Amino acid sequence: MPKLDFDIITLGHGSGGILTNKLLESGVFNLLSNPYLDEKHDGAVFTATGKMAFSTDSYVVTPVFFPGGNIGDLAVNGTVNDLAMCGAIPKYLSLSFIIEEGLTMTEFWDILVSIKIASEKAGVHIVTGDTKVVERGKGDKIFINTSGIGQVHPKAEISSKHIKTGDKVIISGNIATHGIAIMSVREGLDFETDIVSDTANVAHDVLSLLDEFGSDIHLLRDPTRGGVATVLNEIAKDISLGIDLVQKQIPVLEQVQGACELLGLDPLYVANEGVFIAIVASEIAVPFLAKLKTLDVGTDAAMIGEVGESHPGQVVIKSPIGGRRVVNMLVGEQLPRIC
Amino acid sequence: MPKLDFDIITLGHGSGGILTNKLLESGVFNLLSNPYLDEKHDGAVFTATGKMAFSTDSYVVTPVFFPGGNIGDLAVNGTVNDLAMCGAIPKYLSLSFIIEEGLTMTEFWDILVSIKIASEKAGVHIVTGDTKVVERGKGDKIFINTSGIGQVHPKAEISSKHIKTGDKVIISGNIATHGIAIMSVREGLDFETDIVSDTANVAHDVLSLLDEFGSDIHLLRDPTRGGVATVLNEIAKDISLGIDLVQKQIPVLEQVQGACELLGLDPLYVANEGVFIAIVASEIAVPFLAKLKTLDVGTDAAMIGEVGESHPGQVVIKSPIGGRRVVNMLVGEQLPRIC
Repeated sequence: MPKLDFDIITLGHGSGGILTNKLLESGVFNLLSNPYLDEKHDGAVFTATGKMAFSTDSYVVTPVFFPGGNIGDLAVNGTVNDLAMCGAIPKYLSLSFIIEEGLTMTEFWDILVSIKIASEKAGVHIVTGDTKVVERGKGDKIFINTSGIGQVHPKAEISSKHIKTGDKVIISGNIATHGIAIMSVREGLDFETDIVSDTANVAHDVLSLLDEFGSDIHLLRDPTRGGVATVLNEIAKDISLGIDLVQKQIPVLEQVQGACELLGLDPLYVANEGVFIAIVASEIAVPFLAKLKTLDVGTDAAMIGEVGESHPGQVVIKSPIGGRRVVNMLVGEQLPRIC
Repeated sequence: MPKLDFDIITLGHGSGGILTNKLLESGVFNLLSNPYLDEKHDGAVFTATGKMAFSTDSYVVTPVFFPGGNIGDLAVNGTVNDLAMCGAIPKYLSLSFIIEEGLTMTEFWDILVSIKIASEKAGVHIVTGDTKVVERGKGDKIFINTSGIGQVHPKAEISSKHIKTGDKVIISGNIATHGIAIMSVREGLDFETDIVSDTANVAHDVLSLLDEFGSDIHLLRDPTRGGVATVLNEIAKDISLGIDLVQKQIPVLEQVQGACELLGLDPLYVANEGVFIAIVASEIAVPFLAKLKTLDVGTDAAMIGEVGESHPGQVVIKSPIGGRRVVNMLVGEQLPRIC
């Protein structure tokens, strides 16, 4: 593995001068090389035709390295997944660093390598970027922004406008894993080694679902910050219909459920990565779920609820013993800097 | 003017839950409203045809408010200008905030209003965004990432590959103004009130130059961090030709020159905003400069040098008394966090 020829990153590495140049030339450009990035211009030029999706996210997760991943693959997967949620095939990413002076070369290199691997897995090119350095105490190791451009799948018609009464709510996998993985290492809890983040790109699998089910997939969303509860509340308010969940259908790993109980957290509010919610036409819900369960990301997929008219704008959950309660949107902050 | 219904930004505003929702709904979405943003999805969808440019920058300027602008209009203009340097008509921007807990509502609102005004001036839509909040002491008021997409001008063929011996180097305006404006307020210097940043979008003027001179414009670059010296060094190395500058042709405001002397800075290394370098075919250099001088951004434009074969990879400047010296790339950091 080539290495960067300095031990720590200094303010000079953000100057735009010789040190910035060294930082980029000594490994970064080689590592992430592709014809777009190799131009080294202020921006990249590509050719496009038709409907494109554009998304952005800044990643501030702490700690930067966590069980199952680091801020680098999280930043690639997160934006790739946002494009997939628009029904788009991810194509191009920008990559922008805000580094706190003192980040070590080893940390930076490990993050870069994760970025390379995650972008290759997702089939995206990193085509343009930026590096800024701030003084010690004015940042926190490293923040990463990725913005992405994708080509909308020809069969995709993703919009909350298409949701109707009777549509089914499907989740692609176990919930709350990412949030608890971060929380465990942050708090130094005992179960640390058992729970790893599920950060992953879901794009390939989403696209094969679009191939088969096209416009019967009405909405896709990834329940990151605020968790499943918050995303479903946003949707319910947006469509002025209610969403009914069945608690016992919602998949949670046993050790994650245990950690949530220990920490007093409701898994419905804990952040996810590598998990998505699909709201689909009731006619295709069963075959959709069957297909999803055959895909890499969907082994633990489940149908967790449906859209109805009885409590517009609200999410209501039926408990295992039959009671019903309203699931509100997250109030305040449960787990800061989870992504 | 509508106002946000809180006094300071807290960690909860980055939670993805109710507070994030309130932050966005109470003004932000209204202020920046357009059909793309109004969808409030994870990403925006637009239709594209042909060659597109894509650029990103994270802005960490300190102080956040400075004479002539603030981090908000800087973040819009900077990315708009990067697109223009690719020969592209800026169309869509993403907008991503990393806010330090404690930023006041008033500061945030003033920045948002500047973003709105700058994006309207530039004719770009802000179509998608993200908001993260970090703890006190883990950021510095606010960092902003903007990424932009533009449509490449049909006549543009911007590439250093087209530069040849005899090409002329033209600068669109006075250099070093932005850097000195920031420096003056940061250091509390006396000349503070006289020097204001020239942050502005140059896109409209660049596009009208492309209309007239098309592929005879070989390269466009904005000399931000590292200044004119660093950008020209990058170009000289890239093309393996030399660049000869004539010092007395390089426009610098008298008070900026004075401030540089006081601070021991060479204006060639000081950051610029709202200024660009064009390298053009010698045949069109005179009419190009004449046209540029009629445009808003180009009143003080000047031909400052030319491309030659005598010292490949180097930038050499002729002093007013006739001596010549090599202008190296910026070493280390002169003015950290200037953009």
